[in-house]
Amino acid sequence: MQFFKLSSSLNGSTLINFTKRTHTCGELRGSDIGKTITLTGWVDTRRDLGGVIFVDLRDRYGKTQVVFNPQTNQVVHDVAGSLRSEFVISVTGKVEKRPDGTENPSLATGEIDILADKLEILNKADTPPFPIEDEIQANEEVRLKYRYLDLRRPVMQRNMLIRHKLYQITRNYFDSINFIEVETPILMKSTPEGARDYLVPSRVHHGKFYALPQSPQTYKQILMVAGMDRYFQIVKCFRDEDLRADRQPEFTQIDIEMSFVDEEDIYTMAEGLVHRLFKEIKNIEIQLPLTRLSYKQAMELYGSDKPDTRFGLSFTNINEVVGNSEFKVFADTVKKGGVVAGFTAPGCANYTRNQLDVLTDFVKNLGAGGLVWMRVTENGIETPSEKFLGKEKVAAIGQALQAAVGDMIFLISDTWAKAYTILGALRLEMARRLNLIDETKNHLLWVTDFPMFEYDETEKRHVAVHHPFTSSKIEDAALLDTEPLKARARAYDLVLNGNEIAGGSIRIYDRTMQSKVFNLLGISQEEAQKKFGFMLDAFRYGAPPHGGIAFGVDRICMLLSGEKSIRDVIAFPKTASGMSLMDDAPSEVDAMQLKELHVRIV
Amino acid sequence: MQFFKLSSSLNGSTLINFTKRTHTCGELRGSDIGKTITLTGWVDTRRDLGGVIFVDLRDRYGKTQVVFNPQTNQVVHDVAGSLRSEFVISVTGKVEKRPDGTENPSLATGEIDILADKLEILNKADTPPFPIEDEIQANEEVRLKYRYLDLRRPVMQRNMLIRHKLYQITRNYFDSINFIEVETPILMKSTPEGARDYLVPSRVHHGKFYALPQSPQTYKQILMVAGMDRYFQIVKCFRDEDLRADRQPEFTQIDIEMSFVDEEDIYTMAEGLVHRLFKEIKNIEIQLPLTRLSYKQAMELYGSDKPDTRFGLSFTNINEVVGNSEFKVFADTVKKGGVVAGFTAPGCANYTRNQLDVLTDFVKNLGAGGLVWMRVTENGIETPSEKFLGKEKVAAIGQALQAAVGDMIFLISDTWAKAYTILGALRLEMARRLNLIDETKNHLLWVTDFPMFEYDETEKRHVAVHHPFTSSKIEDAALLDTEPLKARARAYDLVLNGNEIAGGSIRIYDRTMQSKVFNLLGISQEEAQKKFGFMLDAFRYGAPPHGGIAFGVDRICMLLSGEKSIRDVIAFPKTASGMSLMDDAPSEVDAMQLKELHVRIV
Repeated sequence: MQFFKLSSSLNGSTLINFTKRTHTCGELRGSDIGKTITLTGWVDTRRDLGGVIFVDLRDRYGKTQVVFNPQTNQVVHDVAGSLRSEFVISVTGKVEKRPDGTENPSLATGEIDILADKLEILNKADTPPFPIEDEIQANEEVRLKYRYLDLRRPVMQRNMLIRHKLYQITRNYFDSINFIEVETPILMKSTPEGARDYLVPSRVHHGKFYALPQSPQTYKQILMVAGMDRYFQIVKCFRDEDLRADRQPEFTQIDIEMSFVDEEDIYTMAEGLVHRLFKEIKNIEIQLPLTRLSYKQAMELYGSDKPDTRFGLSFTNINEVVGNSEFKVFADTVKKGGVVAGFTAPGCANYTRNQLDVLTDFVKNLGAGGLVWMRVTENGIETPSEKFLGKEKVAAIGQALQAAVGDMIFLISDTWAKAYTILGALRLEMARRLNLIDETKNHLLWVTDFPMFEYDETEKRHVAVHHPFTSSKIEDAALLDTEPLKARARAYDLVLNGNEIAGGSIRIYDRTMQSKVFNLLGISQEEAQKKFGFMLDAFRYGAPPHGGIAFGVDRICMLLSGEKSIRDVIAFPKTASGMSLMDDAPSEVDAMQLKELHVRIV
Repeated sequence: MQFFKLSSSLNGSTLINFTKRTHTCGELRGSDIGKTITLTGWVDTRRDLGGVIFVDLRDRYGKTQVVFNPQTNQVVHDVAGSLRSEFVISVTGKVEKRPDGTENPSLATGEIDILADKLEILNKADTPPFPIEDEIQANEEVRLKYRYLDLRRPVMQRNMLIRHKLYQITRNYFDSINFIEVETPILMKSTPEGARDYLVPSRVHHGKFYALPQSPQTYKQILMVAGMDRYFQIVKCFRDEDLRADRQPEFTQIDIEMSFVDEEDIYTMAEGLVHRLFKEIKNIEIQLPLTRLSYKQAMELYGSDKPDTRFGLSFTNINEVVGNSEFKVFADTVKKGGVVAGFTAPGCANYTRNQLDVLTDFVKNLGAGGLVWMRVTENGIETPSEKFLGKEKVAAIGQALQAAVGDMIFLISDTWAKAYTILGALRLEMARRLNLIDETKNHLLWVTDFPMFEYDETEKRHVAVHHPFTSSKIEDAALLDTEPLKARARAYDLVLNGNEIAGGSIRIYDRTMQSKVFNLLGISQEEAQKKFGFMLDAFRYGAPPHGGIAFGVDRICMLLSGEKSIRDVIAFPKTASGMSLMDDAPSEVDAMQLKELHVRIV
């Protein structure tokens, strides 16, 4: 028997040869019984039963039970006694059938165990700060600090494998339909429009800076001008934002651009991708083509540009019913061009006054003037608003909303945007309260025809709803000169269960039109030339019609993994304040480094 | 006939619907004759022959000839008269057999042409600064400024496609052998060791900085501690160096790490990859296993740690022949532990004195004391050194170097490192002069057993030849305590035709050993803890034995494409001073941006 312990002559170092594995810990089956094999891995658990030691040995591929029996090998058994959780070992022995009744059907290797005849301790381990198992109590900070242990947990290994699969499926898909993968620069020019850029001082060019890409938007359009025809890339993007819970300073997108296309080509291509992802990762057949809603429809039905359509509670506009009513609030709203709308919450007719007060506070916190509610009882509809609306109008509202006995009606009156946005939030709140969301469902849909611009009250200018390179709808082009806020864009989002998982547009490919849109966005001609002159120049030399889309990898992985946080599908995520707790980035740097970069901390 | 021109009502914009292609410009064959089809693309050439206009229409997939005959459609013919190079058009018509004798066998679509019945101009084009063809006169600055035009050239499209293929082959290979692709952060901690880091000021954490990774080295080792077992990633890396011709501030590597392995596993895995790349991209069958040379052998045979073995001119050490000679220079060199060695240049016996002076200057510029040369003539060996060496020694040298009549012998005497390095340069110079390099050959080999450390005279300390995480050879571990410069590392490079295309090592996975190596590198315990504490901590919790390698994607693509510059296989490369000429990065940024980052330009 060959046997290595940690050699003390090497100052406790682990610089040793070791016996290499013949199989992984997830591989052995009944058909391997009788073979002498070697496994390597981590001690998952060690149990001492009547003098015999049982070790579950773990690697990425699974677990295998190893038996150390003193009657087989006393020395090996004795060394096994020193094993602790997370020790790294190499163990050699014979594959045996487990005794009848001791098989473990929940383990792929549960039919067999290994009778150990040789044991090498490759590395020791301190007691980990949390156990290496799926359900742990550790808070996220501890998990992120000891990410190398957190990633050993089977659930995290599974998440990383789902992400790995997504990469491969995506690239094989695009390769199969003639897309070309092109890497675009990470060190690019700063052109902040929307979010802040991360900047990188140039050492060679005194006082100048690179920026990290918020997306490779300009490059992918340049690639279309370059005749690449169909481009894709899975690429890191960067935004220096004040992070919300579900954002990271660096994030990954599947970036796509195509020439000589319209929206239909993008939809077909993107639907093909999500179909493959669901089929190959979750064995779910997504029905194609996907539903499409215009932005207007999505807002007026669900109060969101990324509606969760796994449940109903869709809205009804009752402007026609109440426009001419005595209820001044409603009538005034309609007169001013606003909206009175609402939805029916099934089975909520018996909500207490207290429950209704909570919901009223909920919508008031979102800026609503109030919440009108109506109980649909066997005796008709009961509502404090009856005194203003009259019995007839109340009944007409009940009919318009198709309310049944036992339901509660909620109504909001406000401007179009506010009324529907607040209703959208209330709809989600009611779905949660009523437990209406079936987590096993996967509802995908397109939201299309977004507005080109919205007016930013802070900056006192139009800002692009998608981005400045988005084309307007052909029939709305004339509106750019007259009422730009009414112009719709050739922009589209793909929504999964209430999450935007992709967004894109058909682009402007004409220099004059691009200049006009820059102008509408308050970007001066000089600034446009300085920031985007190269694109305007490129459009001089034969730019093809083109369009594209980008998928958010982190969010899709989160949804495919059934996780609640994108941090659980990113190997080394940062905290909400942009810190890496494992290695303590960002950190202070040497004065010499800064001197070379010609910058000083203020 | 449906027909669109640029609509002047839209202010000259190209915001129009267009007829979408049914085929690409590389697709139509004889079997398509008679079909009515639509193509889109760029006007490559336009010829006017006897009233009929011929246009070669180009896209990424090829070229197709389109015929505009006034007898088919007068209006369309007239519009075709306004077409210029690089206009973007959509053209519809019937696929025809070309008249006998006018077929173009050099074109995949050369059997047919399209008789145009409809033409839409999708975008116009100014005259490009250089023609869109493979052989152009434009200097590289112009090509980089107009990269969108440069990338339209067929040779650049081919290069980008080779790169695309390399990505797909690589990932499919690693996926097929159980590797998992994991993305590692781009915003990481600054740990400069060797090259300078690019720094990114943190807005949220005043006075702190992220760094862009010089490689994901620490992360991939952490992934091994995390039990990921086999990791790969095609990843961007960054080094703020004073750029040499063949370097870029950002470059791409295929990054690989494996657990429970030794060198043999790495070699097998890497050889499998290069075998696939050559087979699938160039249809060349690389013979496996690859040759291996130790660093010592490579230096003593070829004077390089990345020898070009497509030709001979290997060296012979003649210390034994000349060590006891009267030639003081040689004898002293041998006495001091140096080397006298040289090689035979076939057919160079007739070199003129002038030619020999040029070569002597060549080696003197590299630091040699001089160049000893010997002509092998029919009358024996002629050399000025005969008066010091004597006839017998000279003959013995000729014999040792197996020189034949007509050859020239070159000898250098110096320290081991200098003698072989200078001989290595002279060997390459002679190969170029003698045109010995067969560009169709592909010679791959491993160079192994590099030294752990070299002594940096400027910094007055040991520096790692590979990197600080490299394990020493097991049998040399004791040398770390006594003569560290003699210790060999478990490090290896993969060399193709004289270019290092990959490099890696078996890593240290023990905390004590890692600390010892940091110490040898002059990294204080405090500094080691500050920079790499998280790795030393990770090694406490069961680090498996592991090793890896990284391939340089840019260089491999360059070699597979037969290009001379990596810039020809990068879509948007930077110049030697790190500038992007197309979009003018790096550039000045707004004072507001810097203020938010708490930095000031000095």
